[in-house]
Amino acid sequence: MSGTLPTAEIMKAVDAGFDAQCDFTAELTCFPSTRGAEQTAQDFMAREMRDRGLAVDRWKIEVDDIAHLPGFSPVHVSYENAWNVVGTHRPRGATGKSLILNGHIDVVPVGPLDMWDRPPFDPHVDDGWMYGRGAGDMKAGLAACVFALDALKRTGHAPAAEVYVQSVVEEECTGNGALACLQRGYRADLAMIPEPMGEKLIRAQIGVIWFQVKIAGYPVHVADAGAGANAIEAAMPIIEALHRLEADWNSAGRRHPAYAGVEHPINLNIGRIQGGDWPSSVPAWCVFDVRVAIFPDQPLDEARAEIEAVIREAARNNRFLANSPPEIAYHGFLAEGYELKGAEAAEAKLGHAHRTVYGEPLREVATTATTDARFFGLYADTPALVYGPVSENIHGFNERVNLESVRRNTQAMALFIADWCGLEKI
Amino acid sequence: MSGTLPTAEIMKAVDAGFDAQCDFTAELTCFPSTRGAEQTAQDFMAREMRDRGLAVDRWKIEVDDIAHLPGFSPVHVSYENAWNVVGTHRPRGATGKSLILNGHIDVVPVGPLDMWDRPPFDPHVDDGWMYGRGAGDMKAGLAACVFALDALKRTGHAPAAEVYVQSVVEEECTGNGALACLQRGYRADLAMIPEPMGEKLIRAQIGVIWFQVKIAGYPVHVADAGAGANAIEAAMPIIEALHRLEADWNSAGRRHPAYAGVEHPINLNIGRIQGGDWPSSVPAWCVFDVRVAIFPDQPLDEARAEIEAVIREAARNNRFLANSPPEIAYHGFLAEGYELKGAEAAEAKLGHAHRTVYGEPLREVATTATTDARFFGLYADTPALVYGPVSENIHGFNERVNLESVRRNTQAMALFIADWCGLEKI
Repeated sequence: MSGTLPTAEIMKAVDAGFDAQCDFTAELTCFPSTRGAEQTAQDFMAREMRDRGLAVDRWKIEVDDIAHLPGFSPVHVSYENAWNVVGTHRPRGATGKSLILNGHIDVVPVGPLDMWDRPPFDPHVDDGWMYGRGAGDMKAGLAACVFALDALKRTGHAPAAEVYVQSVVEEECTGNGALACLQRGYRADLAMIPEPMGEKLIRAQIGVIWFQVKIAGYPVHVADAGAGANAIEAAMPIIEALHRLEADWNSAGRRHPAYAGVEHPINLNIGRIQGGDWPSSVPAWCVFDVRVAIFPDQPLDEARAEIEAVIREAARNNRFLANSPPEIAYHGFLAEGYELKGAEAAEAKLGHAHRTVYGEPLREVATTATTDARFFGLYADTPALVYGPVSENIHGFNERVNLESVRRNTQAMALFIADWCGLEKI
Repeated sequence: MSGTLPTAEIMKAVDAGFDAQCDFTAELTCFPSTRGAEQTAQDFMAREMRDRGLAVDRWKIEVDDIAHLPGFSPVHVSYENAWNVVGTHRPRGATGKSLILNGHIDVVPVGPLDMWDRPPFDPHVDDGWMYGRGAGDMKAGLAACVFALDALKRTGHAPAAEVYVQSVVEEECTGNGALACLQRGYRADLAMIPEPMGEKLIRAQIGVIWFQVKIAGYPVHVADAGAGANAIEAAMPIIEALHRLEADWNSAGRRHPAYAGVEHPINLNIGRIQGGDWPSSVPAWCVFDVRVAIFPDQPLDEARAEIEAVIREAARNNRFLANSPPEIAYHGFLAEGYELKGAEAAEAKLGHAHRTVYGEPLREVATTATTDARFFGLYADTPALVYGPVSENIHGFNERVNLESVRRNTQAMALFIADWCGLEKI
């Protein structure tokens, strides 16, 4: 259908709606939708979808519904406010291919406020960038899903196939929001996720494991420190051993081919630590949270076994830990890696749309992050294209997204949707 | 007056009251008088003192009253519930020497409850030991102050000099409770503190400095971990450098003579750590609390300068910290060391009392802990004898105090009080 697409009209229609799109993105960024607090942003998404005539499905995730499914990640938080929202466009006659447009509503914590130049949930625009927690990761992308469809409507068209706009929770910690969409039965010929990947297509993404290491020491008065085991300091050799595992996984012999040219694909992060309760007591306990990546061809079970062996081995060489081995718990990501395959037709269409807007070929990347794409690709036999705008400092301070990039990306998405789904007059 | 002391009667009187003393100690141990929550235990002490005819003075510590005094330690907690209690015995005719009996009501945090065999504030007795947080450090000693006086009364006597029973807060973190007693004007010829020092007299005690190190990192998504500085891991080289300082202070050349025979007098403890807020974000911040000892002849200012220099130096050698130097804050102990001097007469009397009860000479010790004795000795020209029962696992789990030791210690205290203050008939 490419030949007959109203390309120029669609691109103009995106431009015509772009001020409203920026306002929508800013409004969405105002919602402090950190984990466990996504519900108000989801209510906003449901209202906006309903106003546009999409059929809205809003439901609370139940762990019992998904815990048995492949791709489930264990949780120990309440899902009381974990609501997914899907807005569905159903065409009069389904002549094209169906599409899931997926984005996540959850954002990571802001960290210390004093390291932000401006309040993180009070977005503002400066020199072509919109700043705010979640502006890039990924509320701009989620807004683009809505406004790409708006642009088609502005040209007098709607997709000639089902389009499901999914606003999901839990992407930043488990992916259980996307998994719940699968469990609820949402399927399509293709998924697209506008994560802020710098206008490139993700060819491969790593998997992610979160684990927590708990050390319990035998505390004493610090006057007798030699007799006690300092649980905080006992963490250090374990952290060092984990970094040796990270180096091993990054070594040439263990690399996945998609990551041959990536400088440091496997990152291990000590993301949180807490230990002890009194300066003059030798600390009895220390807990730290680790995030580590695995390659797409690295089975989760084998990676976990390696992690646990490394920790056990480090503990054996520590006077105290040898007698009180650390406990390892998994809360959060148990995510496999994913390599995009079998999507040649979709890739060709996206490449064409990208070239139309940007005047240059679509580049691809193997990312050192994970996305919800794995659920569609691995567990629903649905290729997932991850393609979104330029963003900076995601998970950091002064997170920002480039608005010109958002505009062009939305144009490319709208052209792609028109091409993939086909168009029908409204 | 030793020759005329009713020694046997006093010892028997302690025995006669010992069941009640154990009950009192257990009841006192039930109060969860951790820092900021001492007030209910203090109300109990005030009631018990009043019931015994002591003149009770109960007042709230005001930082403004003491902040200018030598020995003050900085705080950033509220003193809303920080009440001191002093019960005063005034004799009909003051023929003897006056005495302050001082103990602290505050206890250190219990740590994880699951590491206790029994709830820490539900004391119980097993095989001659009383278990519970604070049973040893130092509610048994505080109770002994009260019951030593009770025993004298049971023989028909009262001290022939002023005796001030001080139940103070804040010993475990600042000493500002004892300092507030000085500020309020309490003075005597001698102070005695029955800290659980294993029936030995403290000849010297170290000083203690608490400091907090704050590291601020530049967080990024863990996918780009190489670009960010992990604040948790940046703490490690600083901790290592601090341990090198600890080793230096323990070296022969820097030792205070009282500690020549002590294996490891200076202990540096990383007592608490917190950092980061999300496993997949490179942590932006890490804060850790340190307790370190100094020798009695080591000026506080010089010690602080050395600590700060060591941290600065370690930071200079770290890629990230060189640009974002850690902040050092002092909350809590800025305590000088103290060596007992000029108390020959009192020591002789305590030695005599001890020998009478135990049948062997009083031994002495240079302790690697601090006590409130320093306030009396350094800032009020009042020697302070620290002498108390056998205890184990103070600041640890299953803290306990030996009751037979408490009984004999109370006998020695009662004999000493009678000897130091003299007795008058009631």
